[in-house]
Amino acid sequence: MSGFTFDIHATDGAARTGVITTVRGEIRTPAFMPVGTAGTVKAMLPESVRETGADIVLGNTYHLMLRPGAERVARLGGLHKMMNWPRPILTDSGGFQVMSLAQLRKLDENGVSFQSHVDGATYQLTPERSMEIQALLGSDIHMVLDECTPFPATEGEAESSMELSMRWAKRSKAAFHAAPGRALFGIVQGGVHPHLRERSAAALKEIGFPGYAVGGLAVGEGQLRMFDVLDFTVPHLPPDRPRYLMGVGKPDDIIGAVMRGIDMFDCVLPTRSGRNGQAFTRRGTVNLRNARHTDDPRPLDEMCRCPACRTYSRAYLHHLVKAEEILASMLITWHNLTYYQDLMAGLREAIGEGRLATHAAILRQQYASCDIEPL
Amino acid sequence: MSGFTFDIHATDGAARTGVITTVRGEIRTPAFMPVGTAGTVKAMLPESVRETGADIVLGNTYHLMLRPGAERVARLGGLHKMMNWPRPILTDSGGFQVMSLAQLRKLDENGVSFQSHVDGATYQLTPERSMEIQALLGSDIHMVLDECTPFPATEGEAESSMELSMRWAKRSKAAFHAAPGRALFGIVQGGVHPHLRERSAAALKEIGFPGYAVGGLAVGEGQLRMFDVLDFTVPHLPPDRPRYLMGVGKPDDIIGAVMRGIDMFDCVLPTRSGRNGQAFTRRGTVNLRNARHTDDPRPLDEMCRCPACRTYSRAYLHHLVKAEEILASMLITWHNLTYYQDLMAGLREAIGEGRLATHAAILRQQYASCDIEPL
Repeated sequence: MSGFTFDIHATDGAARTGVITTVRGEIRTPAFMPVGTAGTVKAMLPESVRETGADIVLGNTYHLMLRPGAERVARLGGLHKMMNWPRPILTDSGGFQVMSLAQLRKLDENGVSFQSHVDGATYQLTPERSMEIQALLGSDIHMVLDECTPFPATEGEAESSMELSMRWAKRSKAAFHAAPGRALFGIVQGGVHPHLRERSAAALKEIGFPGYAVGGLAVGEGQLRMFDVLDFTVPHLPPDRPRYLMGVGKPDDIIGAVMRGIDMFDCVLPTRSGRNGQAFTRRGTVNLRNARHTDDPRPLDEMCRCPACRTYSRAYLHHLVKAEEILASMLITWHNLTYYQDLMAGLREAIGEGRLATHAAILRQQYASCDIEPL
Repeated sequence: MSGFTFDIHATDGAARTGVITTVRGEIRTPAFMPVGTAGTVKAMLPESVRETGADIVLGNTYHLMLRPGAERVARLGGLHKMMNWPRPILTDSGGFQVMSLAQLRKLDENGVSFQSHVDGATYQLTPERSMEIQALLGSDIHMVLDECTPFPATEGEAESSMELSMRWAKRSKAAFHAAPGRALFGIVQGGVHPHLRERSAAALKEIGFPGYAVGGLAVGEGQLRMFDVLDFTVPHLPPDRPRYLMGVGKPDDIIGAVMRGIDMFDCVLPTRSGRNGQAFTRRGTVNLRNARHTDDPRPLDEMCRCPACRTYSRAYLHHLVKAEEILASMLITWHNLTYYQDLMAGLREAIGEGRLATHAAILRQQYASCDIEPL
């Protein structure tokens, strides 16, 4: 795809580090994409998101199609201009949120119809409409419309769901509004079943995409099973294309997935946790609501370069959380995104220097004290 | 008071422009002080507050004494260090919020006891304790404890309330924890009665303060009556000391008060309105929740230098307000504080150039379209 390339600079076991180049800038991989659901990474100015080290953010098609509306975003000059993020944006297809957020949804061969959770109006999302919406938003990476197979599902359910997603992937590619530097990624489904994942990967390769996502994970199957699925799925993906694990995850999920060859991630965890007073640090996760921080003059994380850690005490952050001050969400989100970006930078460096296994072992010890609730 | 001076650079009618110098920096007057109730100007980083042009912020003794607690703030190095605002801070006495927010309050000669609205614990606030708390917070300008006379009040009620406040002013001065560059301001009470205001001013001058506030206004008496009170009160205040109109106000309240000789203001209006989607602009106030902004690609205020106006469309701000995004509060608060600081800068310049009356007439025309609700 012209204007969209992926160069692998180094590998370490199954892991790779490299650069995706788009017309709107480079994405260093492995990359973490902060989630900007409704055209804003919550509680952050976009220039601050960039300061954390993010090369790309994710926008949610479902939210944006309902409010402010894809045609309106296009009239305002596209999502990049509207939200003042001139760098790459990936949009999902909208399918996942329809199934998890919308009401009265009805799925058939053609697509899914549903009632908006915002105003109750009825919408339809088909592969063709998803491609149209993502083109109106103007994102750099589009995702095919798929059905995120629920967990648990019987093998028969997982198979027919995967096959529907593969038919939709074909229709998505046919309807894709190509533009310079714009890429459409396929999504592998198939639940926890090796032969279904293999068939799904083969079907997508047959259609041909510049990037491949692993979907249907982080939906309750647990980390061990998720890693199993990656172990038997990733080898079926083209080695020269970026691989994106959707909706993942906690730091140690990301580390394990990078070791299994994943290049891209997105997750609401750092931003949502930030708004709930939970911080990721080099000594594990910290719940700033906890009374033990009341008189603690130390920074949240002495090693961190973010404004929350450079400037404020844990006691002050605790106070802001207790007083439900907006500044609490602002500072802790900023910290968490910085933490995630520094995690990715460390992984990239370790892969480049061939010491990922050692690096991962050190990191995993840090996260042993992780007390954060799963999403 | 050593380290605390007030120099008047120019006058225009009753209005003055000058500089208050404290050990923590200069305050250009007429000055607007953003309100940092609980140790944060809501939805703003302190460096952004400074960028708007603020020389000084206000902290609320009532909120800070309850949470995180004055002794705790002192252990954390004082309010300036805790909230990362190295410039001047004014703290109120706590009295006003006790009467408006606390439960089961009981006022007698000694002071006021009340139940915390945070945790129900019982506290006492006396002139001596207010001085102690403000010293623990470490603010640059302290306010005497007074009783904000309710409106309406009979003349007898206003008189006895004022006399209590004058006895408390005397005790406040006696208990004041003097420090280099720290000043204690007196507060004139007396309701809407000229002879009571005159007696109150005389009593305060007899005690002697480096600055004088006009209290008991902006409590429902209306702008015309407020201006009346200023007309007959300000002439009784020492011309060489800063004059502070507490809790005021809307832009045209400020303009009228500056024309009557007031030097300092504070109000939650720009910050609270910012969180409610209401913006102050050079074309009057704008409710960004209104559907007429849905497709408007123009900036909120073409003349404004703030990030909201430089970067975003009204349509996007409207979207953020409707989606209840934190970024809406962040951007509109930033805009409103910039607007207020630019208003003050314009007033200072007009006074310096002897054209305040003309400038005020132009500004008042702008605010003619003001549709904001009174506080």
